[in-house]
Amino acid sequence: MSAAARVPGETPGQNGDSEGVKGGPHLNGPLTDHDEGLQFLTDAFEIILEEALRKGTDRQEKVCEWRDPEELRVLLDLDLQEAGESHGRLLQRVRDVAKYSVKTHHPLFFNQLFAGVDYHSLAGRFLTETLNTSQYTYEVAPVFVLMEEVVLSELRSLVGWAAGDGIFCPGGSVSNMYAMNLARYRAFPEVKLRGLWAVPRLAVFTSQECHYSVRKSASFQGIGIENVHPVRVDPRGGMIPEDLEEKIELAKSQGAVPFLVSATSGTTILGAFDPLDRIADVCEKHGLWLHVDAAWGGSVLFSKKHRHLMKGIERADSVAWNPHKMLMAGLQCSAFLLKDTTNLLKRCHCANATYLFQQDKFYDLSYDTGDKSVQCGRKVDCLKLWLMWKAVGTRGLEERVDKAFAYTRFLVEEMKKREGFQLVVEPEFVNVCFWYAPPSLRGQEGSEDYRDRLAKVAPTIKERMVRKGSMMVGYQPQHDRVNFFRAVVLSPQLTRDDLLFFLDEIERLGSDL
Amino acid sequence: MSAAARVPGETPGQNGDSEGVKGGPHLNGPLTDHDEGLQFLTDAFEIILEEALRKGTDRQEKVCEWRDPEELRVLLDLDLQEAGESHGRLLQRVRDVAKYSVKTHHPLFFNQLFAGVDYHSLAGRFLTETLNTSQYTYEVAPVFVLMEEVVLSELRSLVGWAAGDGIFCPGGSVSNMYAMNLARYRAFPEVKLRGLWAVPRLAVFTSQECHYSVRKSASFQGIGIENVHPVRVDPRGGMIPEDLEEKIELAKSQGAVPFLVSATSGTTILGAFDPLDRIADVCEKHGLWLHVDAAWGGSVLFSKKHRHLMKGIERADSVAWNPHKMLMAGLQCSAFLLKDTTNLLKRCHCANATYLFQQDKFYDLSYDTGDKSVQCGRKVDCLKLWLMWKAVGTRGLEERVDKAFAYTRFLVEEMKKREGFQLVVEPEFVNVCFWYAPPSLRGQEGSEDYRDRLAKVAPTIKERMVRKGSMMVGYQPQHDRVNFFRAVVLSPQLTRDDLLFFLDEIERLGSDL
Repeated sequence: MSAAARVPGETPGQNGDSEGVKGGPHLNGPLTDHDEGLQFLTDAFEIILEEALRKGTDRQEKVCEWRDPEELRVLLDLDLQEAGESHGRLLQRVRDVAKYSVKTHHPLFFNQLFAGVDYHSLAGRFLTETLNTSQYTYEVAPVFVLMEEVVLSELRSLVGWAAGDGIFCPGGSVSNMYAMNLARYRAFPEVKLRGLWAVPRLAVFTSQECHYSVRKSASFQGIGIENVHPVRVDPRGGMIPEDLEEKIELAKSQGAVPFLVSATSGTTILGAFDPLDRIADVCEKHGLWLHVDAAWGGSVLFSKKHRHLMKGIERADSVAWNPHKMLMAGLQCSAFLLKDTTNLLKRCHCANATYLFQQDKFYDLSYDTGDKSVQCGRKVDCLKLWLMWKAVGTRGLEERVDKAFAYTRFLVEEMKKREGFQLVVEPEFVNVCFWYAPPSLRGQEGSEDYRDRLAKVAPTIKERMVRKGSMMVGYQPQHDRVNFFRAVVLSPQLTRDDLLFFLDEIERLGSDL
Repeated sequence: MSAAARVPGETPGQNGDSEGVKGGPHLNGPLTDHDEGLQFLTDAFEIILEEALRKGTDRQEKVCEWRDPEELRVLLDLDLQEAGESHGRLLQRVRDVAKYSVKTHHPLFFNQLFAGVDYHSLAGRFLTETLNTSQYTYEVAPVFVLMEEVVLSELRSLVGWAAGDGIFCPGGSVSNMYAMNLARYRAFPEVKLRGLWAVPRLAVFTSQECHYSVRKSASFQGIGIENVHPVRVDPRGGMIPEDLEEKIELAKSQGAVPFLVSATSGTTILGAFDPLDRIADVCEKHGLWLHVDAAWGGSVLFSKKHRHLMKGIERADSVAWNPHKMLMAGLQCSAFLLKDTTNLLKRCHCANATYLFQQDKFYDLSYDTGDKSVQCGRKVDCLKLWLMWKAVGTRGLEERVDKAFAYTRFLVEEMKKREGFQLVVEPEFVNVCFWYAPPSLRGQEGSEDYRDRLAKVAPTIKERMVRKGSMMVGYQPQHDRVNFFRAVVLSPQLTRDDLLFFLDEIERLGSDL
């Protein structure tokens, strides 16, 4: 049948596609009948509730149903075919995807800087997906243009700014990139048109323990990784301001032009907070843009008890903060916040596309915020955070943060009561970094192969827990430290028993090593 | 109550947060009780089905319930408070967000390069949101690491490549940025470490009608907008290869080093396809990377009947293709495809973070694909496309594309039968660009103020349709063309009657102008 024979005139009504269907309404035809579609969605929703949410949060179920890649590939039958599949087969696929995926909601998932589930946020995410719009103009996203601004404004208030600007980005790395581009534009606006050849060699400063996205940004933006100058850290992992000052002077003496310091609130591994007030002094003295990568740590600003960790944050020029981490807003939700009130964000990024940003629209064009972005289409990331915030209030989010600190403290104290556990540093935040020395290694600290043997413990215990599915926690080496565990304690759905189980399980899995 | 008093020991069990709750279980406490959470989600799901999907696709309902920004702000009560809100109030908020959002699923939404709804994709999106994981490692996203590779491989097959590489990016602009960065890295790998100061001034070539993201990329990546050389287009909007060659020679003569041609398959406004084969000849001759921005047009590769529009695509080095547009996979779903088989993507972007990409893992590390990305956390964008593809098969997607072309042809033929409608160009694709001259303007083409008066027609009709909520279609000026409409015809849920209504409504809204 040719396309011409399928001209719409022959297929009036809402179900005009049935003539293209072979083998029944669900096979090989675009599913465009709304009633059938809603039925599929409803059936899939039930499976999602049961398999991903009920089982996914149940301590009696596994955190992951591990399969090696080749086996999983066969199990999932991933290849795509000419013909479509039946309703029943597709629902089974929904079930399988849920079954073999890691349950990041599970109380025993300590592996990443996100965990747990917030059902209000999740409802907001379902609504976002259903409304399927892009954040560029008021015309096509009226609710979300207004909502984004309110949410950003509330986050800015927590930073300590009465005014400013901002945007939601696809993740903290991109937020950090925005900071680098804006800092560069403020210092050398000619780069936008003429490129880096028009300006002297630039220099960025960040700590040795910053997130790797600072280096990725420098590479992507043509600045080059060698022009990111690593600043030394103190034993707890915070940037040393005196060394920052030295590195700035050194770069200048080598002919480079410093323009940006990227400090970190909550480093990825240790959870350290850079001393912002002292770093801000250095930035002021040298006229540098101060960006704070608070993707991980920013949420402490909700807590009256813990926000001192970010003392001085209001002196920053920009902040990256991911509510999808500690606040459980769901991936992705990354706010890039700016102190600037001169429309720098738009001036730096705008391209004035006529087909989106018509100048003769009938409403106030300042609501068409899309040209602030380096994206064109941009996902709506504000609704989930807004709905969750409406649901629990600022106090509820504060409680979430305080509770994570309290649970962390509990875990650390319990760890100290047990043999074989050794903290890498006393946690400032909710990253609990520790070595576990099994019985055979205890008292052997002086032996020649101690470090090599200790380095093998974490990977082995990790493999065992994943194959068993009992829990998940990350590990890594760092500088001269051999492999150590990093347990991230953040979900308010955790109980004391979960944390005790965590310690018991490390002991069980490592006892024979 | 201090945080210390809330140490988890006092609150065992799954509902350990009730002691922090004031005013009932739904007020001011993190919602962490799973049963309550599931109930909220289920209630919200019912509202989403009714308000966003049933009403959102119903021709008797409005495409948008327009409110001016200040009025909408008050209606929505967006401000965030210290205390949380009740279950019932929150459900009303879900209803309100749906009510005042634009119904991009509505058959009379012709405003953007996306429209319609695919329920299988939507189910995949709900599952993605629920599983809440990031695409960086096999460890934490086993299903999606394998699935992404299968989907990318199938898309590459349609391009005509038996092997290659790729990644899903947050939108077509970012995919285009990836192309620019990779092309630069292939030509000058030293940029990654040393920055652009280490290399001569670079030059990019793209047509006058390319997407604005090419210029945004050049700015963001430090190359500068002035180093993007616009190539002239023929009357239908396709790049003129002879002019490309001239511009390359000119740039070289001015001391710049060409490295990238960004061609377009499906321009944003007219839907034009650049002549890839002839552009590839030029790229080969000069040793330039050929990127094809097929974000919009790429889906024609599914159609045996229409894929000739992209003849020569297999000669490209990279392709950006957004299945969230014509295939209805849902925002965001943007594939960046590469012909390269030398691991260029990873070499260009890798930072080897130890906490994610441990080298002593127990499985094949080639499955940890996250270091190919300039993001760290990265949303799962493959599941929705995969599930939809499984559901309707390759043939179903082909049918979707063919149908959009057939409907476009129908609209164009109907338009030609009516007075006052004038095509800007004969459509190559599914963008129908046209002026509408109301009765008072007909026969006045020679008058002095004709252009000025015609330019005001589209904005006025647009305002009227939006305030009425009857339909949505975009408009823009272009070069020396005054404002014209661009109707995007893509949803298979359209009927002939919808298209006739579209024309009737333009006439009704513009008759008195």
